[in-house]
Amino acid sequence: MTILHRNDAASVATLTMDAPERLNALSDDMLAALTSAFDDIAADASVRAVILRGTGKAFCAGHDLKEMQAGRQAPDGGAAYFKDLFDRCATMMQRIQSMPQPVIAQVHGIATAAGCQLVATCDMAIAADDTRFGVNGVNIGLFCSTPMVALTRNIGRKAAFEMLTTGRFVDAREAQDLGLINRAVHADALERETSELAQSIAKKLPAAVKIGKQAFYAQAQMSTAEAYAYAGDVMVQNMLIADTDEGINAFLGKRPPNWS
Amino acid sequence: MTILHRNDAASVATLTMDAPERLNALSDDMLAALTSAFDDIAADASVRAVILRGTGKAFCAGHDLKEMQAGRQAPDGGAAYFKDLFDRCATMMQRIQSMPQPVIAQVHGIATAAGCQLVATCDMAIAADDTRFGVNGVNIGLFCSTPMVALTRNIGRKAAFEMLTTGRFVDAREAQDLGLINRAVHADALERETSELAQSIAKKLPAAVKIGKQAFYAQAQMSTAEAYAYAGDVMVQNMLIADTDEGINAFLGKRPPNWS
Amino acid sequence: MTILHRNDAASVATLTMDAPERLNALSDDMLAALTSAFDDIAADASVRAVILRGTGKAFCAGHDLKEMQAGRQAPDGGAAYFKDLFDRCATMMQRIQSMPQPVIAQVHGIATAAGCQLVATCDMAIAADDTRFGVNGVNIGLFCSTPMVALTRNIGRKAAFEMLTTGRFVDAREAQDLGLINRAVHADALERETSELAQSIAKKLPAAVKIGKQAFYAQAQMSTAEAYAYAGDVMVQNMLIADTDEGINAFLGKRPPNWS
Repeated sequence: MTILHRNDAASVATLTMDAPERLNALSDDMLAALTSAFDDIAADASVRAVILRGTGKAFCAGHDLKEMQAGRQAPDGGAAYFKDLFDRCATMMQRIQSMPQPVIAQVHGIATAAGCQLVATCDMAIAADDTRFGVNGVNIGLFCSTPMVALTRNIGRKAAFEMLTTGRFVDAREAQDLGLINRAVHADALERETSELAQSIAKKLPAAVKIGKQAFYAQAQMSTAEAYAYAGDVMVQNMLIADTDEGINAFLGKRPPNWS
Repeated sequence: MTILHRNDAASVATLTMDAPERLNALSDDMLAALTSAFDDIAADASVRAVILRGTGKAFCAGHDLKEMQAGRQAPDGGAAYFKDLFDRCATMMQRIQSMPQPVIAQVHGIATAAGCQLVATCDMAIAADDTRFGVNGVNIGLFCSTPMVALTRNIGRKAAFEMLTTGRFVDAREAQDLGLINRAVHADALERETSELAQSIAKKLPAAVKIGKQAFYAQAQMSTAEAYAYAGDVMVQNMLIADTDEGINAFLGKRPPNWS
Repeated sequence: MTILHRNDAASVATLTMDAPERLNALSDDMLAALTSAFDDIAADASVRAVILRGTGKAFCAGHDLKEMQAGRQAPDGGAAYFKDLFDRCATMMQRIQSMPQPVIAQVHGIATAAGCQLVATCDMAIAADDTRFGVNGVNIGLFCSTPMVALTRNIGRKAAFEMLTTGRFVDAREAQDLGLINRAVHADALERETSELAQSIAKKLPAAVKIGKQAFYAQAQMSTAEAYAYAGDVMVQNMLIADTDEGINAFLGKRPPNWS
């Protein structure tokens, strides 16, 4: 029995979290499976885009609370286990942004706590219009501090503060308005719309997408002047790719590019 | 005669600015009263959320211009007084974000210049739908540079630049779309909606809200990697609170938590 | 033949890019002309606001691809030329934000790649409602890494990532919702609305606008505490301007200011 399936088709890898009875919780096993899958895909030049989805009623409901409570039995009350758990989770989240291929969350049902963090962390996200999003750990006395890192890098302060301190859920329409997802679509269209987005990226020059995605997150943490110095070097590097030469010539010649 | 009233009920402290004839201007006295009140509340474990409101036609119209002009009579033309004034004001604003309890602005009428800064600084804000917001100091030759610090940490660049250089007012609906406030409500519903928001927070575990609010502003100024390292430690600290253990057990047992 | 016209009226300088057959591409000549014009205006106290527009079907379609491809003929395959080109472009872009007068983009037709960067870089932007915006270099294998620096400082992460990796165009309404432009207006009203915005700024005290614009971009890159210390000093400096004294007195006396 595996809790994460990978299915590759047309240069797109689809990862399906499949622990529906636990609402696809980020258990130790699920974190390990996701990290391993992202590592594998990062090294796999045949994959140009990734879709992350889940089976059952929820996209992902966050950490596995039963497992966390079991961790309290250790002599230190769980401190070392919790520290390691949040480290492993943060590593997995940051792997999504450091891997060369864009990762799209295909979201349905609910995305709560670290499940909402997963949506915020993916490069893009499309959600069924009946999806609900929350960082509601505060309701049980556990403020969503790590999900907050991803959430606040996607949406404005006032809305983020309210979601975090009240646990209020937002629906897909509000999530779109806030910038947490790219768009809400009818549930019937979710798979098709996500697939089309992945396909549109799979048709681009992978070297350009790889360069761009890396630069996207790097420059975001720089001053404007530093970012321009860095991005200028990235542009030069991109210009010197033979396929980019061909891509520009094809455009100027009004013909499709003949990429290697 | 006091210009700031405090009224505590059901774990929520309501601070009412009451200098309506001066549109609740942030005079030396008002700044001192607000700072003192926030300091008191920060140390008062009986308070779990704060509402900031004003009497009269305005929530707050910014600095007290008559007092500022009087400051010019000093031998240095007011330089030392102005420096001290803006220091005191910035200290008060930052106190709102450093205190453990969430602070909600209940906004009506107008919120201009440092009054708009106050709205932007509060953790959350609800406004009557006929409220108008502006950083209009530029109209009298005094660019709202300190209000800008708070404003630009809430809304996008293009809108902020326009508000600051044209002095244009935005209504409550636009303020909501921009992210300056959480939402606009009918004037008749303002007090009730703000109270309900405060009450929803007052029901959470105070230790979790305190940890979370502190982390909210701290991590916002870090790189993503630094923020995750920091937030992971915060989560461990939160997990080790006995009431959090109880909160999670209660959730897993489908019963209300029995918090101390 | 000149490719950039400057027309001054009522304290507003209007710069018109006029290379319609090349969709106002940022050729070596256009970059030099823009940089020179911005330098001149920065030193010209008679100008209080700037409008940047273009003739023909496009506001600006980005870099001049033919010129860039010609640069590949150098022994180094163009590396030195490309580096210099992106440096010159970044210098021009940053000049817009470092000059004392606000710069408003008056956008029509299309604004793509470095043309979209130009819109994102201008302090404000108004667009005809049939304008289309894109950072679509990825379609030809050249990821818009330098335009990304400006774009991501205007709009949210999810939308920016999608625009950059899919090349998808957004219309003026979506550009407004995202924060890329201040607003979309009917094409017939574009010139008038832009002019009115420029005029509203031209009526402000230039010293206050200059102080404010400089502080706007400076404080955006500081921590909140640093930003307040800095902005407080800026406020003191602003208060000590004689015209600001007059502006405040005029406001208190309910009369128009008598500025020098």
